[in-house]
Amino acid sequence: MKGVIFSINPAARVVDVTHSVPQGNVLSAAFAILSAYPYFPSRTVHVIVVDPGVGSSRKILAASIDNHIFLAPDNGVLSLVMRKKKAKSIIDVKEQRYFLKNVTPTFHGRDIFAPVAAHITRGVSISKLGPKLMDAVQLNIEEPNVTEKHVTGTIFYVDSFGNCISNIPKELLDARADKDQPSVHVKGQKIPGIRTFYAQGKKGALIALFGSTGFLEVAVVGGNAAKRLKIRPPCPIKVSLY
Amino acid sequence: MKGVIFSINPAARVVDVTHSVPQGNVLSAAFAILSAYPYFPSRTVHVIVVDPGVGSSRKILAASIDNHIFLAPDNGVLSLVMRKKKAKSIIDVKEQRYFLKNVTPTFHGRDIFAPVAAHITRGVSISKLGPKLMDAVQLNIEEPNVTEKHVTGTIFYVDSFGNCISNIPKELLDARADKDQPSVHVKGQKIPGIRTFYAQGKKGALIALFGSTGFLEVAVVGGNAAKRLKIRPPCPIKVSLY
Amino acid sequence: MKGVIFSINPAARVVDVTHSVPQGNVLSAAFAILSAYPYFPSRTVHVIVVDPGVGSSRKILAASIDNHIFLAPDNGVLSLVMRKKKAKSIIDVKEQRYFLKNVTPTFHGRDIFAPVAAHITRGVSISKLGPKLMDAVQLNIEEPNVTEKHVTGTIFYVDSFGNCISNIPKELLDARADKDQPSVHVKGQKIPGIRTFYAQGKKGALIALFGSTGFLEVAVVGGNAAKRLKIRPPCPIKVSLY
Repeated sequence: MKGVIFSINPAARVVDVTHSVPQGNVLSAAFAILSAYPYFPSRTVHVIVVDPGVGSSRKILAASIDNHIFLAPDNGVLSLVMRKKKAKSIIDVKEQRYFLKNVTPTFHGRDIFAPVAAHITRGVSISKLGPKLMDAVQLNIEEPNVTEKHVTGTIFYVDSFGNCISNIPKELLDARADKDQPSVHVKGQKIPGIRTFYAQGKKGALIALFGSTGFLEVAVVGGNAAKRLKIRPPCPIKVSLY
Repeated sequence: MKGVIFSINPAARVVDVTHSVPQGNVLSAAFAILSAYPYFPSRTVHVIVVDPGVGSSRKILAASIDNHIFLAPDNGVLSLVMRKKKAKSIIDVKEQRYFLKNVTPTFHGRDIFAPVAAHITRGVSISKLGPKLMDAVQLNIEEPNVTEKHVTGTIFYVDSFGNCISNIPKELLDARADKDQPSVHVKGQKIPGIRTFYAQGKKGALIALFGSTGFLEVAVVGGNAAKRLKIRPPCPIKVSLY
Repeated sequence: MKGVIFSINPAARVVDVTHSVPQGNVLSAAFAILSAYPYFPSRTVHVIVVDPGVGSSRKILAASIDNHIFLAPDNGVLSLVMRKKKAKSIIDVKEQRYFLKNVTPTFHGRDIFAPVAAHITRGVSISKLGPKLMDAVQLNIEEPNVTEKHVTGTIFYVDSFGNCISNIPKELLDARADKDQPSVHVKGQKIPGIRTFYAQGKKGALIALFGSTGFLEVAVVGGNAAKRLKIRPPCPIKVSLY
């Protein structure tokens, strides 16, 4: 993919965001791009090739969202970004003159995504890539459920340290945790309180805290929470508020 | 290696092609460079440091092939590239003024390959690196064998998804599969038919298809064929044509 | 981190030195930066984020050493670099105007180290980052012990091949090995002699040699010494001189 990009735009700057998304796991990829994109310069072209349906009839999207450009298979991987910020435009990428001449059915990353991304960085407007779409495939992820005594959510990402990240944002608990310290429940474990940073717990302790993306996560100090608790996303998580 | 390259040519563009070649596996590396190089701009310098014989008397080659430059140990790693395209020239790299001052016997990648590559990108012709060679070490890989009823070949690469890639090119079967759907035989398994893309099979199904490099491969949909079948290259594979 | 860096300095060149330091292992990170930094251009900014104490009261250091700039948590990770070359200046990084606006307690790499590094590459002097420090946290690593008949040291790094690298430098043995070939003792194994390069031993043989960083290491030819001997740093190693 990088060879193709540099063949079209030798001045491109290419960053590998992550190679740790479990293969074919669209939900984890959706979280990874949600976490990373805001830290890149505006007008960055984000290329997402977690694409288990490559070669099938699934569409390819180019989307302008929050002053960034996203190029991704239409498999829901942009769901979380689009929940946070409404897409300004979504294009059904079809214009073959921006593809490699020989498109294989198994590696659109190299044959379609890479050359299209390189052309965008050279100034091609996404509106030239194909017709407009009104909507994109959405992942079936429930928003956290809030009751008087509990907040329930879903762990949808495990990072390279084994920290297990949920879809429960800090703001949601900040608004509610007015009395006691909440406790976190996951995989039959009860974790008392919410910490601020990892080294606050003893080595080997199971803790809960808000991670660098602003979501509630479960971690083991100096260890691997996903392995300890055998967590594979999606996995339910509950916060007891009182 | 990158520190050395940027010390000599701060404007170089460096791409990591793969870190997934099994350590010391020259055959897998030979396939990896065959697959990747055509997608890079012409005159790219491809540096290959799969080099289990580092420090021994093995030569170091600089070769001009198909308008690309290759810098590699003389251990057969360029065999597949040279079968596809005849080398225009092969040089026995000996000119120490392009090496680091202190060459260790265990890391020629850093001490020889990196500085030589950087000097080439700054305009040093490979003819200045040493005397011409008439030939290079070749891997002992048989070409696919074609009979009336079968094509037999060798799986020589496992990619990061566990897909098992053989040396049987699509053209070879296209010319022969004039009657029925062929079946693929590997590790005692019979796989009926050849698919076009991964998502055509059910999750967990063992399938055969032509991958993005144009060679026949064996895959598990949403899984890992190499692990399932315990395949470690080289491994025989057979296609029954009728 | 790279998104943040390119947002501040689009012309920066960013190199990933290693992703193979065991998580939270400050000793291994200390060795990795000692090995890598001299090969980068002078005035390179080396950013080290092996930082298990992130969010706690540990300081953040900017140090000018050997014409390079180091940005690191004050957890001892610069110990080995500072033993080799005296720091010209050490700064307690506190100037928040060079940080991201929103600093999380769990990812200072992204929120502090990356933006500060990018500002340094744009010309900000480290003296502007905070007050001077007289000293930094040092790792508790003993220097090799030399007696008439033995040199004892510590294996403190395992590389991606499983080679086990000690803190015994070649110079130290060169000065002493005046009579017989020394033998190396580790984990109850006796390894006779010291080789020059990996391929000198038979496949599967346990060997000792001086690696590319100039330190004594233990390796298995075509194999993984750390797995074979179950070595996890720090681990004692002894050389018998006679």
